Parts: sequence; C-alpha cells; structure tokens
Amino acid sequence: MSSQTDTNIQVLLARRPKGAPTEADFRIVETPVPEPAAGTVLVQNLYLSLDPYMRGRMNDTKSYIPPVEIDAVMGGGTVGRVIRSDVPEMPDGTIVEGLLGWQSFATVKPKHLRIVDPALAPISTALGVLGMPGLTAYFGLFDLGKPQKGDTVVVSAASGAVGSLVGQLAKREGCRTVGVVGADEKARYIVETLGYDAAINYRTNEDLSAAVREAAPSGVNVYFDNVGGPVTDAVFDNLALRARIVLCGQISLYNASKQEMGPRNLTKILMTRSRIEGFIVFDYLERYPEGLKNLSTWLASGEITYKEDIVEGLRNAPAAFIGLLEGKNFGKRLIKISDE
Amino acid sequence: MSSQTDTNIQVLLARRPKGAPTEADFRIVETPVPEPAAGTVLVQNLYLSLDPYMRGRMNDTKSYIPPVEIDAVMGGGTVGRVIRSDVPEMPDGTIVEGLLGWQSFATVKPKHLRIVDPALAPISTALGVLGMPGLTAYFGLFDLGKPQKGDTVVVSAASGAVGSLVGQLAKREGCRTVGVVGADEKARYIVETLGYDAAINYRTNEDLSAAVREAAPSGVNVYFDNVGGPVTDAVFDNLALRARIVLCGQISLYNASKQEMGPRNLTKILMTRSRIEGFIVFDYLERYPEGLKNLSTWLASGEITYKEDIVEGLRNAPAAFIGLLEGKNFGKRLIKISDE
Repeated sequence: MSSQTDTNIQVLLARRPKGAPTEADFRIVETPVPEPAAGTVLVQNLYLSLDPYMRGRMNDTKSYIPPVEIDAVMGGGTVGRVIRSDVPEMPDGTIVEGLLGWQSFATVKPKHLRIVDPALAPISTALGVLGMPGLTAYFGLFDLGKPQKGDTVVVSAASGAVGSLVGQLAKREGCRTVGVVGADEKARYIVETLGYDAAINYRTNEDLSAAVREAAPSGVNVYFDNVGGPVTDAVFDNLALRARIVLCGQISLYNASKQEMGPRNLTKILMTRSRIEGFIVFDYLERYPEGLKNLSTWLASGEITYKEDIVEGLRNAPAAFIGLLEGKNFGKRLIKISDE
Repeated sequence: MSSQTDTNIQVLLARRPKGAPTEADFRIVETPVPEPAAGTVLVQNLYLSLDPYMRGRMNDTKSYIPPVEIDAVMGGGTVGRVIRSDVPEMPDGTIVEGLLGWQSFATVKPKHLRIVDPALAPISTALGVLGMPGLTAYFGLFDLGKPQKGDTVVVSAASGAVGSLVGQLAKREGCRTVGVVGADEKARYIVETLGYDAAINYRTNEDLSAAVREAAPSGVNVYFDNVGGPVTDAVFDNLALRARIVLCGQISLYNASKQEMGPRNLTKILMTRSRIEGFIVFDYLERYPEGLKNLSTWLASGEITYKEDIVEGLRNAPAAFIGLLEGKNFGKRLIKISDE
C-alpha cells in the first residue's frame, strides 16, 4: 500500500483534541499524487518524524508556529526522494529533508529542502541525530546550558531523540550526567549504552526530589528539560548556585485539557540565582551547518550513538504519535512511509 | 526612651513564625550598651531598614544567608553614628552603614561598615535609594533586565523601595513603564510622581492578565518581579519574544505556611524564548561604588526621587515589619531608632 506511487496517502487533522489525542482526531485520505509545478520538485516521502511539538500545533492557540488547520495535512519533518524534477540542483533520486507533512508525496520548492548525503549516515538520521532533534540537543546544551567540566547535568526524557544526545554531549564535555526516564529498560539503556552516570525512573520513584539529590549530590548545574511538571519540581529542589535550565519541552503538560497546577517554586530560582531560558531550535537556523558538521564528525568517530524507534506505515502514524506523547517510544520515533 | 544612651534596646527572634509573623514571634529586651573591643567601634543606630528578605531569615531553612537563631538579635541594615572609637579612619561622629541588626547599639569592626557622607543626601537614604534597595534596582534592571529604548518594563511592588526606582531608571532609558501596586493611592503616586506610564492595582483588578495586556499592548520585554504569585502569572501571559524576567523577590509567597500552588506556566517561557534569572544584590558587592556613584548623580540632578515611610521607635519594628509584608508601607519603610 504505502509504497505505491499512484496514490498520496495523507493524514489530516480531523478535529482539535481535547486532552490526549485519539485516533478519531485524525482522518486518513487518499488523493492523487500531485504534479510538480514549474520550479518545484515532487518528493516521495520515505520517513516521517514524530515529535512532541506537533501536539501544540493541533491546538488552536498562538505559538511559535501556526496551528494546523482542520482538514489540513498534519505538519512534520520528512526525509524523501525527489522523483520528478526539472530543478537542476535536485535531480531525480536526490535525497532531501523538509517539512513535507504526514503524507506520502508532496511538491515543494527546492529552497524549502535540505539535501541529505546518504553516504554520511542512514538517511533517517536526517530526522534525528543529524536533524532537528540533534541540533536541538547541540544548541540547547552548548548555547544555553553552557556545561563546564565537572558540572552535573540532569536531562529529562533522557532516552528520547533529544535527551539521548544531550547526555552524550555533556559526558563528552566531562560532566556528570543524570537522566530521568519512564521505564527501567530505558534507565538501563541510558547508563549502559549512552554513558549516563545515573538514571532515575520517574514512574516508579516515590520521592523524586530525594532521587535527584542522591544522583546529584553537589547540586544540579545544568538541567535540560524536555518534560516539565513534577520531574522539573524535583530538579528545582536541588539546584546548584547559578544553575542553567534549558526549557526545551514540557511534554508532561501538552495533553492537559485544563491548566495544570504545581508548586510555586520560583523562589528556588531566586535563591540560587539560577537562570531559566526557553529554547526553540528554529532560532538557530543560520548555525545549522556548524551543528551538523560537529554532530556528523562525532557520529562517524563513534563518540555519539543513537537509537531509532521505527513504526511501519503512514496509516499507523496517529497511534504512533499518541504513544509518543505517552512515552511509549524508545528512542527517536519515526514512521517508515516507503522502502528506500 | 529610644534615644537614651545607657540601654541597648534589642529586638530578638523569639520563635519561628508559622505563616505570617505576629508580634509574639519577637521579644524586646534591654541590655547594657556594649563596650567596644580593640579594633572595633561602638555605633549608635539611628535608622533600621525593614526589608522583605528578613522574613526568609526567620525560617530555619537554607538560603543565601543563614537563618537568625532563636533568641538572637534580628539581622538588618542600619545607619548610625560612631560614638566610641579608637579606629583612626572612623572617629567619633562618623556616620556609617552596616548590618548591625534590630538594636540601638552595636560594636563592630570597621571593615563591616561603609562610611556615609551626610553632605550627599539625608543619611537615611543609605538604606534606600543610595543603599541596598537602590543597588538592587540598579544592577537587577541593568545587568539582568537589559532594558532597551522602546521596551515595555513591568515592575511589581512598583511603589516600594526597589520598584519605585526600577520604574524611574527604566523610564530614563526610554522604556514604557508599567507598575503593579496594591492601592489606588500608590497607583496615582507611581504615575504622577515617579513617571510610570501605567499602573495596575492588583487588589481591585479582577482580570490581571487582561490588565497587563492593556497596559503592555506590545507585550512585556522586561519584568522586574518583587512579588511572584498571581501578578507574575498575569505577566507570563503577556511576554514579548525574548523577555527578561528579573526575579528579585517573591513577597507574596514569603508568609506561606504550606506550599503555594499555581499554574504550571513555564511553557510560556519556552514559547517566547524568555529568560528568568534569580537576582541577589550581594553578588554585586564589588560594583557597589559604580552603582552608588550613578544613583547619587541622578538623585542630585533630580532625575530620580524616592519616598520614605518612617516609623518611630525600635519597639514598633515588629508591627512595622508585619505591615511591610502585608504591603502596608508606602515607600521605603524605615525605623527611626534615635534622633540624628
């Protein structure tokens, strides 16, 4: 089904979710494969990236990117192959990455695409370690977290696409790394494979604040937060002086249908003279080449590794995305849309 | 009573308050005036500064300065006169400022004192506009807030010792200034006398978020927070891109006997890529001369003004401090301990 080239399978936003999305919030349609207009290329998508930020775009609220309209194709990053082109710099067969959405084909102007070198690494990494999540880890950690040798760096969602890399990059800088995850299997993975010094399973630990204190006895110098909520509260209880908190995601709050409440704990930021800063990778667009160059080098040398969680078939994207928001992924979650 | 020179009136911490302090949490004693040991001076305190941070020191919790011990003299900044000295650089009659506590006399080494020039301004200003609150406004606003011409700067507790100055300094930089206060009289004062562009009375306004939106239609670029709680929530609803939030105080939370709860709204920091940073003026000790030089110049030129709220007599300090925590002061609250 998904590899046929005469039908465009598209996943649309059918309605705005209340709380956690359900499959009924999406609608899958088949449409004709579009014809590329002059100056555009036709891309067959091979992989779709599923990312927590997509939940925000399903709401009708102002954000850094506009909401997906009802009955529009869900937005998202893809890697694909150019299959029809009259653009000389992107001939048929070129592998490209872009925001082509939850669909099997799309036409697009070349300026919205980045050419992916299949010789460098598996092309799916253009959506992970050598793509937006990798760059998020890179710029968020280095530019805002400013890790120093000997610092303790705590990462929430530490086995995810971003967190798995943050820990490795911090370790490479000589930091003590502590990862917070939601499963024992993930805890083992981040310590044994990613080199984290300690792991905390937030689902089974009854006193998160004490767990962070034990894992970070000198206090937390850098907190890379993908999660928010009680995990973040526990870290705030254990900040070192002048801690840097990189606010990269707040996935624990994205499905809330009403305002979540929590302790008012900014006094802890005041007392420790810490800094909280919001981070969105799109602000670093001009420096992507620098980040990709370094990440590619470290990937090639084996200094960093990654894990993918690939689900087959675009029709399974809604369920896979719902699972991602519940932490059911293990590594970077991708949809394989078509064979390479 | 308070000007007699043979008895040291001291206000001790009798017990740790639960929630809001009461007068029974303090005890007033009379002790002999201490004799200065070699290398120290005896100071007769003339003014005592009352400041919100003192509430934190009444608790037995770790902070940036240690708690006041039970039965110890309450700590605090004073301005006084050296009345017995064998220290050449501080002869009898020298006016000094230091952390001499809630008492009418103290002996102290000169290195813990700053000489105050009575020709510069009334000596009580060494506890206000030309002292710790003034320096707090100066370094907090300029170093962390980084106001730019045209920015909208919102200040909570805007008629207080710190906030009254923050607004004037920001206005001087060409910013739009919005002050949040707790009384209509204070609202008029900050607009008419301090030059704030707008004032919001948080006690009478039913929709603080809408009030901030109206007063800051282009969003809030700098928020100087002395208060925390619902006022801060309302500002978080209205942040401009890359807003700077100076966490200077959280007075609305200091009397809480249990953990206050509030909306989890760090996602707003993330989306706007804003920065929250904790601020404590003691970190800027080495730069006090720079700050005092500028503040003195602007005070002399009439570019900035200040308001004092002076309560007579050390025996009234507990009630005056309790009132300060309730926002009953109007301007910098001081205790006049003795006639100059």
